Amino acid sequence: MVPPAELLNFFRNEDYFLIATHMSPDGDTLGSSLALSLALQKIGKKTFLLNNDMVPKEYAFLPGYERFHTFENIQDSGYRLQDFKRIVLIDCNDLDRVTDDKSWLSNFNLQTSAVIDHHETEKPFGDIRWIIPDSPATGLMIFYVIKALGVDLSEDMAINLYAAIAVDTGNFRYGNTTSEVLHVAADLTDAGARPHIISTELYESWTESRFRLFIKTLNTLQIEDGIAITTVTRKMLAETSTSPDDIENFVSYPRTIKDINVSVLLREIDDNYYKVSLRSKDSINVARVAAAFGGGGHKSAAGVRIKGDIETVKAKLIKQIKSE
Amino acid sequence: MVPPAELLNFFRNEDYFLIATHMSPDGDTLGSSLALSLALQKIGKKTFLLNNDMVPKEYAFLPGYERFHTFENIQDSGYRLQDFKRIVLIDCNDLDRVTDDKSWLSNFNLQTSAVIDHHETEKPFGDIRWIIPDSPATGLMIFYVIKALGVDLSEDMAINLYAAIAVDTGNFRYGNTTSEVLHVAADLTDAGARPHIISTELYESWTESRFRLFIKTLNTLQIEDGIAITTVTRKMLAETSTSPDDIENFVSYPRTIKDINVSVLLREIDDNYYKVSLRSKDSINVARVAAAFGGGGHKSAAGVRIKGDIETVKAKLIKQIKSE
Repeated sequence: MVPPAELLNFFRNEDYFLIATHMSPDGDTLGSSLALSLALQKIGKKTFLLNNDMVPKEYAFLPGYERFHTFENIQDSGYRLQDFKRIVLIDCNDLDRVTDDKSWLSNFNLQTSAVIDHHETEKPFGDIRWIIPDSPATGLMIFYVIKALGVDLSEDMAINLYAAIAVDTGNFRYGNTTSEVLHVAADLTDAGARPHIISTELYESWTESRFRLFIKTLNTLQIEDGIAITTVTRKMLAETSTSPDDIENFVSYPRTIKDINVSVLLREIDDNYYKVSLRSKDSINVARVAAAFGGGGHKSAAGVRIKGDIETVKAKLIKQIKSE
Repeated sequence: MVPPAELLNFFRNEDYFLIATHMSPDGDTLGSSLALSLALQKIGKKTFLLNNDMVPKEYAFLPGYERFHTFENIQDSGYRLQDFKRIVLIDCNDLDRVTDDKSWLSNFNLQTSAVIDHHETEKPFGDIRWIIPDSPATGLMIFYVIKALGVDLSEDMAINLYAAIAVDTGNFRYGNTTSEVLHVAADLTDAGARPHIISTELYESWTESRFRLFIKTLNTLQIEDGIAITTVTRKMLAETSTSPDDIENFVSYPRTIKDINVSVLLREIDDNYYKVSLRSKDSINVARVAAAFGGGGHKSAAGVRIKGDIETVKAKLIKQIKSE
């Protein structure tokens, strides 16, 4: 993976970069942004880290996370959004993935924009575009940018990139875990990332409340024809004093069962209204399942919101999955 | 890690090797033995793979697993145990870890024995001993043996070694996940190991019954002062049509909770008789906890059998853990 010369020259020739993550930030967008920011600082550049949402508490171990600004607190820094002329979008490829607040979007006043991402594109945003849909993580691309800029990897950069890559490869379990991923993870460990410490932060830092919600969720498990269905109600959240954030990744667990091809999690948003998460193991395309109800996503991970009483919603989903 | 010349010469100079795993074989002893056997065959040697127990079904994906013989079926191969003159113990370092059946032990009639292991030794067994307690897995040591013998890694060797290393490092999550581990895992992937396929076999191949037992076990969770206690009764096994093998690794799950320092799982063996598994995260030495009741193990993973009614057993364990 070789970053384009145009991108490297942009970093070499300009002085001040607004680095922006996608909404509902995950480990890849956060760790990648932080590592790039640290590397650009090393070659004398200034960076400003922008995040629509607060950094989720589970990512507060990423070195430098406190340097992120939300739109609301840009002004505390003495700047206005319209002061920033150069932007780099990380792990997303359009401004409407950075924020869906139209009042902010109208304040961008950019001269040059660059995009570094591994998602499929829908719009042609960006003067400089480096988009590799086959890259396992944006963190891997940032690793090569840092190398190409001739910056020595610091321990803090290595931790951020290791976390980014670990999150997007399921800690080296997903199908995108190539030998390149493992070679780079090894190099990051040589540079100071500690796999055990990072994985403890990522996977062994649940609150007891979250674990209690997890048990309650597993207790709702129904299995039908290779489809696992679990449900989280508002009552369950209230009983365990948890929030929807705590449900993150629960949908993956029933995949532990060999014969499960699709795992579905329904979260009750309101009376007769459900947020549906879908995960598939093999050949079933859950993006198409979600699309049938107006949702979207990737082949193996998709989502949609559906209205209806729970038994009807389940029956519709099962029927649609079986037709795939 | 450099294998001793004496060990390499043993492999080069002799022709027929009995390769033995430890009892209750895990991925490291099985994968390491199979990879060594395949490599020795490549340089024209004969090997005979010996296993006290049957290969557990979850390891039936390891290439060559069907070549293992148990003591009972040695004679089907046309040999007797006393015919084997050269033995290599893999992932253990004494014959009494190969079998605890004294009638078999008395049949060994060895001229030369070698030991390749990463466990602490208790007895000085073995004419040739390569024991590295700091090695994350025996699989890593076998990787270096194969390299030193000048054998090209085949895909089958790579799969066996990758599985061995994955199992003993918690799929690159435990504290023993060094950069060397990741470099070797990357090399094994270059040689044909597929991380996603191996981790699916290791972690996403549970039966539905096992998952139902898992949920029942989590429902017994009690937490007191950073100690998580879960229980599996004979009734729970009967209700889910599962066996004690299915409980493997359940004790690790409550460690997902940040504030849990020790996780304890009690399995009812008989009336008022429990097999206790202990896992710790940080500074607490559970080997000492187990030793206080006559058991043993490592600092972060230990076990013991205790008699008594369940509430008394729990109370004794909690008291002992708190005194650590």
